[in-house]
Amino acid sequence: MTGTAAADLPGRPIRVGLDVGGTKIDAVAVDPAGEILGRLRRATGWGEDAVVDSIVSTVVALADETGVPLSAVGSVGVGIPGLVDADAGRVVHAVNLGVESLDLADRAERALGVPFRVENDVKAAALGAAVLSGVSGSMAYLNLGTGVAAGIVVDGSIWRGSRGTAGEVGHISVDPHGRLCGCGQRGCVETFCGGGALAKAWGRPGALPVRDIFDAADAGDPLALALRDDLFFGAAAAVRVLVLSADVETVVIGGGLTAMGSRLDEGIRAALHAGAEASPFARSLRLDERIELLPAGSPAAALGAALVGASISEKEIVPHG
Amino acid sequence: MTGTAAADLPGRPIRVGLDVGGTKIDAVAVDPAGEILGRLRRATGWGEDAVVDSIVSTVVALADETGVPLSAVGSVGVGIPGLVDADAGRVVHAVNLGVESLDLADRAERALGVPFRVENDVKAAALGAAVLSGVSGSMAYLNLGTGVAAGIVVDGSIWRGSRGTAGEVGHISVDPHGRLCGCGQRGCVETFCGGGALAKAWGRPGALPVRDIFDAADAGDPLALALRDDLFFGAAAAVRVLVLSADVETVVIGGGLTAMGSRLDEGIRAALHAGAEASPFARSLRLDERIELLPAGSPAAALGAALVGASISEKEIVPHG
Repeated sequence: MTGTAAADLPGRPIRVGLDVGGTKIDAVAVDPAGEILGRLRRATGWGEDAVVDSIVSTVVALADETGVPLSAVGSVGVGIPGLVDADAGRVVHAVNLGVESLDLADRAERALGVPFRVENDVKAAALGAAVLSGVSGSMAYLNLGTGVAAGIVVDGSIWRGSRGTAGEVGHISVDPHGRLCGCGQRGCVETFCGGGALAKAWGRPGALPVRDIFDAADAGDPLALALRDDLFFGAAAAVRVLVLSADVETVVIGGGLTAMGSRLDEGIRAALHAGAEASPFARSLRLDERIELLPAGSPAAALGAALVGASISEKEIVPHG
Repeated sequence: MTGTAAADLPGRPIRVGLDVGGTKIDAVAVDPAGEILGRLRRATGWGEDAVVDSIVSTVVALADETGVPLSAVGSVGVGIPGLVDADAGRVVHAVNLGVESLDLADRAERALGVPFRVENDVKAAALGAAVLSGVSGSMAYLNLGTGVAAGIVVDGSIWRGSRGTAGEVGHISVDPHGRLCGCGQRGCVETFCGGGALAKAWGRPGALPVRDIFDAADAGDPLALALRDDLFFGAAAAVRVLVLSADVETVVIGGGLTAMGSRLDEGIRAALHAGAEASPFARSLRLDERIELLPAGSPAAALGAALVGASISEKEIVPHG
């Protein structure tokens, strides 16, 4: 299906989704059938005004490139790091973006005349991952990036929990004698399998520290071997926690570390196997059959953001003056 | 309200709930307003036939003692350890009861002519604890007994998860170098705060090993001090896992170890405080304000079982025979 064909549909059938990261925005336009009509990436601005500007210009550029007029865009969903008040469309403490407090939905709506909805990036990605992996029932999306967090999706909806910490498995301690975490606790899951913690522990220059660690481990470097084991151990621990607390059927793994592809997949599976070796109980969970790695560069977060935007009810979709 | 008054209500208004433990059955009769009309405890039989017999005779004795005719009992709910297929009313692998596989609901219904519903004991207790503690929204019930497990209740319903392992926090490892668990893994939450694991590590005779450990710790015994710290550490870890994965608003703590009362409560709160001391993130969770200890001997499990039974739909309530 081409962008032109979709734009010919009556009304405002196109949903745009944006995954706003620390360095780039990943944007998709989605038609009513859920097909991705177009995708582009733009640099993210720094600070509140620049973040709004880069979001607005990305939507305009995506519409232009996809051949969809802005008047055909029914909603824009934005997945963004930090604490998100989804009802108010507000983001606070998005430190990687230089944002302290931003009424993102309001400001972007005023600029474009299109309804915006804002969601935490990992929660949005969880929704997109559920669709991309075709999982029904319950699933968790485990994001292995600079940090580690998960989102839980039950019957197609984001599991919100009571205070917004559902899926915060990155800061569960699994070793009281482990490395100190940025959060102040010791031995958090994130200290084992977060890209940031691994890069810090590796301590050597390089643009892709986790790839460097894997390559050095293959060459027998003892520190790299230990850190690679840590990564697999931490990810396996996160999977176990998600299954033994929320009992999700499947854990879909995404995030920047999926650039390691099958080397990551096989390592996590091996760690789950090793954990189950001595335990009939752990074996009975069949965890290695319940994980799935998204392909590197998967548009899970942007697609999920588009779905979040699509949840804006019809009555809310009134063009602004 | 007296049993007689309740029995005068038309139809079959009384709900009976049984908590079947390894040594005793705790039974309650509940009126339509949720008031407990009567409660009694009986010894549990060993093996499949004896378990059915002791359940049937407990219901008869409870009805008799409460002054409620069996014809006024609309349902019996049974909370029982082991793997429960709630839809089929079947229990398997209840090792503490000598039960390998038992069609409990069928057999008990045939004996009494009252509809039975069966549920895992911790899940039933979670439902009862939600009512007793007056918690709305989401809560977890953390059972600290011989073993450790939790049940999650959301908006008044048991959170089932996909394969029945929701809330199995007892077998999440929180220390890779910890004690070997009965399940074959190392450093499980249960190895720190399960009454069975603590008694084994204590290794001295006595009917109430956890009380002995607390008393010896007060007297300065080094092993007892270490084990008491383990108990607080493990319970605090379980609370953190429940909040950071399922994000329940409140964790209600019950089970045999609540016999230790405020000594347990204060110790767990102190462990949560200590964990939060170095971590603004952990402090922001305000975990010490989100736990609640049930009084020792609370009828949470039996009451929850009565609620499980009450969920039998009207059309299922047809007298047998």
